[in-house]
Amino acid sequence: MQNTIVQQTDIDLNKISIFKKCSADFFSRIADQTNLQHHSKGKILFIHGDEAKRLYVIKSGWVKLFRETLDGTQAIVDILPAGHVFGETAIFEQNIYPYSAEVVEPGEILSIPLRELKSEIENNNDMALGMLGSMARYRRQMDKEIEHRSIQNAPQRIGCFLLRLADQTLEGPMKIHLPYDKTLVASRLGMQPETFSRALGKLRNQTGIRVKGATVELDDLNQLVDYSCAACSSEFPCKDLNPVD
Amino acid sequence: MQNTIVQQTDIDLNKISIFKKCSADFFSRIADQTNLQHHSKGKILFIHGDEAKRLYVIKSGWVKLFRETLDGTQAIVDILPAGHVFGETAIFEQNIYPYSAEVVEPGEILSIPLRELKSEIENNNDMALGMLGSMARYRRQMDKEIEHRSIQNAPQRIGCFLLRLADQTLEGPMKIHLPYDKTLVASRLGMQPETFSRALGKLRNQTGIRVKGATVELDDLNQLVDYSCAACSSEFPCKDLNPVD
Repeated sequence: MQNTIVQQTDIDLNKISIFKKCSADFFSRIADQTNLQHHSKGKILFIHGDEAKRLYVIKSGWVKLFRETLDGTQAIVDILPAGHVFGETAIFEQNIYPYSAEVVEPGEILSIPLRELKSEIENNNDMALGMLGSMARYRRQMDKEIEHRSIQNAPQRIGCFLLRLADQTLEGPMKIHLPYDKTLVASRLGMQPETFSRALGKLRNQTGIRVKGATVELDDLNQLVDYSCAACSSEFPCKDLNPVD
Repeated sequence: MQNTIVQQTDIDLNKISIFKKCSADFFSRIADQTNLQHHSKGKILFIHGDEAKRLYVIKSGWVKLFRETLDGTQAIVDILPAGHVFGETAIFEQNIYPYSAEVVEPGEILSIPLRELKSEIENNNDMALGMLGSMARYRRQMDKEIEHRSIQNAPQRIGCFLLRLADQTLEGPMKIHLPYDKTLVASRLGMQPETFSRALGKLRNQTGIRVKGATVELDDLNQLVDYSCAACSSEFPCKDLNPVD
């Protein structure tokens, strides 16, 4: 059974950008050190400031990365879907996790010892280059996030979030499903729940989209593109902000 | 004369984190390809989307990195002081600059061909590791920026900006000078000039700081720390947000 899991792991990891350049030796070294676990909603995987021993790969479900202030206010760093990796930058942060991680939609999460990744980066220059490329992409996404918080208003930010969930090549009517609850979407966009509700109402009035619970119906993507992408320095279709890279 | 400039360049570059692990061979290769130029305020060094041929190192002055939307609204990516490098991540972005760069306080700026940096990263794994460390630090700073935009109010963000300009080890009365004009500080913090003025007024009333033109007088740093750092997940003194790393 162990072999089966390892085989699955190998195949999936090869598709994820930071592992693409890993050596065969790396995969054989991690084979019996990789854990695949199912986690329920609410499971805390680690806390900001904990000593970092493992990196995580989301196979299914969603994971919230966040930090808390002394008075308990949460700041969302990111909410990640399947295919994303987290905890890996701790190897450049004195092996301390720079955020906390909580499962917000149940799923399977794989974990790998950080020391193996570190050793691979130190000894395999192609791997180090791959990781640099991956961090540059992430940096561009964060640049864009800060840009949006500067120049997009709240309804435009929600429009942009919906566009990222859509298949940007489709034309005509479509439905977009919110991947997690609205309170979490609000936090992800740095808004209070009340601000989010008001802004979603305004977006609906301005663009003609229809909101039914967790589903948004559009006649055409351009309803959102015209409204949101006018206040962005990138052009649609957007290569910077896909939820999975 | 050429030699003198190169010698100066070598000494300065060695102090800057991404060049610390560069080989002697790298420095000798760039010796006659390095330009040091004085630039006036308003000089555009490159435009978002330009083909990237050189990276830049600020020896003095301040440089604004920004992007523009189609209707001409500017989003500030960063405003960098002496000691900072920019344009270098273009090697991971198909050699396209991901932002525009403009000199906002006159100074001397050094430039180095990107192909030499790329070749060094590809052939010197220590250099690749150094660059990964530098990008991880930058990522932490951007995480923090997004956190602040989510949970700090406008006066708290101005307080945080002032703390980053101060010598955080000093006690007792001190003066902090704004490094560039208030309109630019407002943009850097993602605020409209009117929002900035109102927020600065509120910060003054709440903390007792005194604002005289471009100078802020404090009785003690704690006036700002108590007010701003309560809405932050890091503790003071802050290692994440120094203007120069």
